[in-house]
Amino acid sequence: MVASYPPAMRRLVNELSKLPSIGEKSAVRLAYHLLVRDPSEAKQLSEAIREARERTRLCAVCFGLTEDERCSLCTDHGRDQTIICVVEKPSDIFAIERSGGYRGVYHVLHGLWSPLRGVGPESTKLGALIDRLQPSPGGAPNHVREVVLATGATVEGDATALYIARTVAPLGIAVTRIAQGLPKGGELEFADELTLTHAIEGRRSIG
Amino acid sequence: MVASYPPAMRRLVNELSKLPSIGEKSAVRLAYHLLVRDPSEAKQLSEAIREARERTRLCAVCFGLTEDERCSLCTDHGRDQTIICVVEKPSDIFAIERSGGYRGVYHVLHGLWSPLRGVGPESTKLGALIDRLQPSPGGAPNHVREVVLATGATVEGDATALYIARTVAPLGIAVTRIAQGLPKGGELEFADELTLTHAIEGRRSIG
Repeated sequence: MVASYPPAMRRLVNELSKLPSIGEKSAVRLAYHLLVRDPSEAKQLSEAIREARERTRLCAVCFGLTEDERCSLCTDHGRDQTIICVVEKPSDIFAIERSGGYRGVYHVLHGLWSPLRGVGPESTKLGALIDRLQPSPGGAPNHVREVVLATGATVEGDATALYIARTVAPLGIAVTRIAQGLPKGGELEFADELTLTHAIEGRRSIG
Repeated sequence: MVASYPPAMRRLVNELSKLPSIGEKSAVRLAYHLLVRDPSEAKQLSEAIREARERTRLCAVCFGLTEDERCSLCTDHGRDQTIICVVEKPSDIFAIERSGGYRGVYHVLHGLWSPLRGVGPESTKLGALIDRLQPSPGGAPNHVREVVLATGATVEGDATALYIARTVAPLGIAVTRIAQGLPKGGELEFADELTLTHAIEGRRSIG
């Protein structure tokens, strides 16, 4: 007979292989690490997954990650609740927060519009965003005054931003897109043509 | 306040970051996948880790992975138990088994000799290999007739092989090293100098 991994190890490799960007060989390496190199870590990881799965949920307002009904940003009165920054996924929120340059709130789409992969706007949290932007029932003035589209500078990110801009426009709310251009420290000679095109198109007067 | 991940998610990211070749950003992506994209997989993975950790152990003879006292190779009477192939880790066994070119048994070192990282032969299963090679107490003839050193063609793999060769030599057992040279399909112009040196040094007569 040809040897193979013991059954429980094979199941573990199989489960690990389902994770994004983890191939068969990486899964074997990870399983070996967990079972032989550091079994106490295996216990902690197994429990951390179970606990995080039980406790973590999506914020009822912005769909960011939280352990409560609403996340700490949506319940923070120090944040400007009249500006909503639209991002693809929760980690984008923390990237923007680390930059420290934004004081509004967020809306997580949990996906982008991707016709090539058959993913339409309806499979994202776009509908919930539109709901958030509606005037309150009593006819009071619309609360939100600006929607900042902060999806990535990719084909799908741009398509999604354009789609949302068109959907939001009739509501009379300002819609902006984060700037595209040279990254900080970027040299012209190493920038691709599209980046340079955007950098020139988006030029602003100085001084 | 600056937003951060909810506590249970942060713990999960922390645990995932401890895995080899998983950085902070990969850990965040994996945690997001497990918590939002595919929560049922999270449950399965958590259980697969727990189960594999409880069931999997090292074979008492060769230190390969097994769910029994001794692995399926060590208990297989169809295998030649007089040839022991020495490898660094369990996945090396399965790489050799897939090649189909070996019918002996194995010994897993679970590490290599690495003076630069302060890892000596005593932190591997080398001692247990020497025990396996000892003549049986009754003075019967030594059972093992060949030790094949199949550690990788790296500095540490070569150093470990050399160390084992010197340790085993006094026991009067044949010690061989797997061949180093051009990989199948390898072109000379793309081979590095050391590979070519080994390929020429290890040349064999044909025809």
